[in-house]
Parts: sequence; C-alpha cells; structure tokens
Amino acid sequence: MKTTAIAHANIALVKYWGKRDAALNLPATGSISLTLKELFTKTTVEFSDDPAQDELTLNGERANPKDEQRAGKFLNLIRAQAGTGQFARITSENNFPTGAGLASSASGFAALALAAAHAAGLNLSPARLSELARRGSGSAARSIFGGFVEMKPGVLPDGSDAVAVQLHDETFWPLEMLILITSAAEKEIGSTTGMNRSAETSPYYPAWVASSVADLEAMRDAISRKDFQQLGEIAEFSCFKMHGLALSARPAILYWNSLTVELIHAVRGLRQKGIPAYVTIDAGPQIKVICLPEYSEQIRAALEQISGIRQIIKTSPGPGARLVED
Amino acid sequence: MKTTAIAHANIALVKYWGKRDAALNLPATGSISLTLKELFTKTTVEFSDDPAQDELTLNGERANPKDEQRAGKFLNLIRAQAGTGQFARITSENNFPTGAGLASSASGFAALALAAAHAAGLNLSPARLSELARRGSGSAARSIFGGFVEMKPGVLPDGSDAVAVQLHDETFWPLEMLILITSAAEKEIGSTTGMNRSAETSPYYPAWVASSVADLEAMRDAISRKDFQQLGEIAEFSCFKMHGLALSARPAILYWNSLTVELIHAVRGLRQKGIPAYVTIDAGPQIKVICLPEYSEQIRAALEQISGIRQIIKTSPGPGARLVED
Repeated sequence: MKTTAIAHANIALVKYWGKRDAALNLPATGSISLTLKELFTKTTVEFSDDPAQDELTLNGERANPKDEQRAGKFLNLIRAQAGTGQFARITSENNFPTGAGLASSASGFAALALAAAHAAGLNLSPARLSELARRGSGSAARSIFGGFVEMKPGVLPDGSDAVAVQLHDETFWPLEMLILITSAAEKEIGSTTGMNRSAETSPYYPAWVASSVADLEAMRDAISRKDFQQLGEIAEFSCFKMHGLALSARPAILYWNSLTVELIHAVRGLRQKGIPAYVTIDAGPQIKVICLPEYSEQIRAALEQISGIRQIIKTSPGPGARLVED
Repeated sequence: MKTTAIAHANIALVKYWGKRDAALNLPATGSISLTLKELFTKTTVEFSDDPAQDELTLNGERANPKDEQRAGKFLNLIRAQAGTGQFARITSENNFPTGAGLASSASGFAALALAAAHAAGLNLSPARLSELARRGSGSAARSIFGGFVEMKPGVLPDGSDAVAVQLHDETFWPLEMLILITSAAEKEIGSTTGMNRSAETSPYYPAWVASSVADLEAMRDAISRKDFQQLGEIAEFSCFKMHGLALSARPAILYWNSLTVELIHAVRGLRQKGIPAYVTIDAGPQIKVICLPEYSEQIRAALEQISGIRQIIKTSPGPGARLVED
C-alpha cells in the first residue's frame, strides 16, 4: 500500500544534547520544542517485491548511499514489526531548501515513520510512532506532534517510555520564529558526534544533564502561562548551556560563525531597546529568533540590515505528522 | 622616598575565573600564566605630607575618580602595614596603548604594589608582594614573577597562601604570543562581575573549579617537558571551558565579537594545515595566539589577511616586577 505522510520540522526551546543509550537512541535529557508550520517534509513509501533494496529519492534525486542505508536501516525496524521482508521505494521532499543549513532529519524521520508504518500495515499510536521516529533521529520523535511538544527521556532500558507528548496544540499560542540562515556549509561536527564528545570529555556534562530538569519545568510553566519573557530566558539559558557544554568538550566544539555571534549581539541590542526577542541555536551556525507576532516584522527589518544573512524564514506553530493523499 | 617600578602584563594559559573570597580577592582556582616582555607598566610612587588625598596620573593625565579611589584603597593596605598616614602621588604609564583592549590591571597593580611598598619603606618578599598585588587585581599576583608563573588558590582564610610562584624563568622556553586586537570597545561585563555571575548562576561552576586541578597539573607538565602540543591543547581547553562557563551563566556572558570567532576558526584552520598554533582568550574579544618562534611570522602573515583586526602585537616571555631608576 503506497502511503504519503507530511511531518513538520521543530525547533527545541529546551535543548536535547546527549544520549543515555546510543543503540536505541535514547536521550539523556528531556526537551521541549515547537513544531513549525512553514517547514515540512512530504514522504511517500511503497513496499513491494520489486526493488532489490530500499530506494530513496530525495528532492527529486536518488539519495547518496549513506542516506539510503540510514533509511533502509530504519525501515528494518518496521519490517521486523510488520513481519515483512519487502523492500521499499521512498520518495521524500522538503519544502525548505536543502543546503539551507536546516536539519531535515526531524521532519524527515517523522514523515518516514508515519508513511512507512502505515504502508506496512501497522496501526501505531502516536506514542509508538514517536518511539519509532526517535530511532531514526532523536528530534524526529517530537515532530510526530504539533504545537508545543515535550520529549521525555524515559527511564526504561527498552526506550518505550522515551517518547514525545504534546503539551499544547498549534493553536494555543501564536508565537513566531525567524530563522536566519548564516551559512549553507555542512557543519563539521554532526549532532551525534558532538553529543558523544561532550558526554565523554566535558567536565560539565553531568551538570548539563542534571540542570535540564529545572529548565523543562520552567519552560512548561512559561508556555502554560504564556509568559513570553520566561520562555525566552529559559530558551536562551538552555541554548547557551548547550553551546557552553560543546565548547568545553575536548577538543572544543564551536558551531558558530562570525555572523552567528553578530546576530546574538544584535538580538540582545533589540532587547535593550525594549523589543522582546530571544535567540536559540542548534548544532550549527543558524540563528532562530523567538518573538511575538506583533514584533516579528520590526525584528526582521532590524536584522536584515546586517550583511551576510543568506535567507530569513518566518515560521509559526504547526501541526503534527499526518497522512495525506499522494 | 620616591620609587619607580616596572611590571609586565601576563596572559593566563590556565585561566583564573571565580573567587573563593571577594573581600580578600582570593581565587577559587589556581592559574598558570606567561609574563610578557613587550607589555609593561612603569609606576612611580611618592608618599608625602603634601597631597590631601592620593593622586593618580595615568598615561600623562589625571585619572578618573573611580580609578583614583581604587588605587587609594589599595594604598591603604600598604599604609596599614607601614604605619603611615601619608597620601601618595602616583604616576603610571603603560607602554601599550590604553583602549587597545588589553587589561592593564595585572601589570598596573604589580608595579604599584612594588613601587608603593618600597616607597613606604616596606621590604617585602616576592611572595608577600604577590599577596599584596592580588588585593588590587587577581592577575596582578602573577605579574610579580617573570616567565611561567603559577598562582596558588591557597586554602587559608587570610589568603596568605594565595600567592604566585615562578615555575620557570623567562629564558626557559622562548614561546611567542601574537595578541590580535579585535575591538577597542570597553567590555560590557567586567571580570569580577562575570566571575560572580558565573559562580552564582551557572550549573557548571563547581565542575569548572574541580576540573581546573587536572589542567594545572597537565600544564605544569607540558611546560617542564616543553611539549608545545600539550601546552596548546590544555590552554585551549581551559580557555573554552572558561568561556563555556560564562555562556552558561544567567543571563549568558558572551565576551566574543564576530571577529573573535572568525579568528578562532582561522587558527584551527592553520592547525589543520600543520601549523602549530593555539588560541587563548580572556574576558574580552581579543585573541591571543600561542606559537613557537619559528612559526610566528607565518601565522601573523596568514591572520593579518583577515579584515577588521586593529593591531597585532608580538610578545615573548618577560621578566618579573622590579625597581628601576626613575
């Protein structure tokens, strides 16, 4: 059965960094994210007797062997559950430009999990879909849900409790986010490598893990009360703690470029002028500015004065993963 | 008795960040530094019945009241030891440009401690001079000595064991350091404020303090064996841990500007090409590149291609504080 699903990207407001189990891809800490309406992946999966191996077409082109193998390995989990040995044809498209420096693994593996599970005849609950998506990419577990989403690190060795839950749907609080692309270059150090090096070499890692519990609680509270200042302050605290942790690894991991730093200072400057805006930064040089809708155009106008920004994408809370007509 | 002393600036290879006692200015961690030949302060002190208060002339101009009061408060320590009530005329000159973004407090308070103690008739040992200089500025305790210097955090409540010692004199290992001035702007957050905020708000602070012990040991070992790679790796580890700690404070402290980050990447790029060079960064945006003499001109030539650098100063190991003819 040929099945198509859409899943949206998400940005963590309280960051995920570090794994408690590498094989099952279990996070060491929880995280809270916002699913993004404007950025999504659409994926079609069909299992059949025909292909001699899994075939992945990504944005209209046959994927490289590494990506194809990663997808195939992920489909093995579904084949095992569904009791099938068939290979699949996968076609996947991101509506956001590839090479724009935006991670597509969250939306990609969430869409693949839903489409492939359905195509294989599995009827999985959102929690089980989230658990499945996590095996592809930690952040993909969150993209199963819309709006404000919390990923639970869980405690069980099998990872069945390491799943995301929705805190509030996408209509709850119409925040906006400006994504400022500072570089399209591929990052030198991927997330998994960065997480592992941080865990293995940074003296700050235990404190990072321990201190995340309070951040999650404060963020849940900020969202439920729609307290923008608290949301922004906790988001920056979590973001800079994550980058401070990466910096303290040996050797240091520095995901930022010069424009990243210029934009951090620019957003701080806006705040000093009374414009509420906060940054968050993932494992790369792009800046995401969290703002209220009534300020987003003013913030965009101020920041686009800074030379070197390749693209600014405005986003807002979006829905969870869903099946669609082909 | 009118007395003149010279003391040199120093750069920490293992960073000092955090106080165990604010009133006595006792450090929470040890530190290891290199005293710098090319950067120094020359200070003349004369106690007399004449002035109605301490008068400080800094680089040819009467100092602002805040700096004058800080100097006066420091002289109170000497007056108490010497049993005098006389005020002093102080003239102090830095041979490096003020506003070049280089801290002058280390060389300044070391020169002031030596000149004023001698002018007041005190005959202090280097250890007691170091203890005295520390009361003016933590890093000044190290500038009493030449070459490679270790500051001990001490354990005594009175701080008498929180003094610097010389590890090796300035002739031991002719390293070089390039100081790249990226901005002459005064930093937004001074060291003391930054240290206090880090200690009070960062979950990483205990690990910063605890992990410094191993860094000091590894740095002592690297210097004694003249192992440049180990020296550089430990220096960067300590530096990035310090800045990672500052980033993890709430709100985050970011001492870097865009050029700082560009230069960090540039030095890493040089290393990937086989040119041994390591960065260290203090509580500001300037970059110091640690290198071997045979590579320094090549490194300078590569880095001065990067636009925006205001000045490059080449330095080498220098002597400790000393009395000189006026």
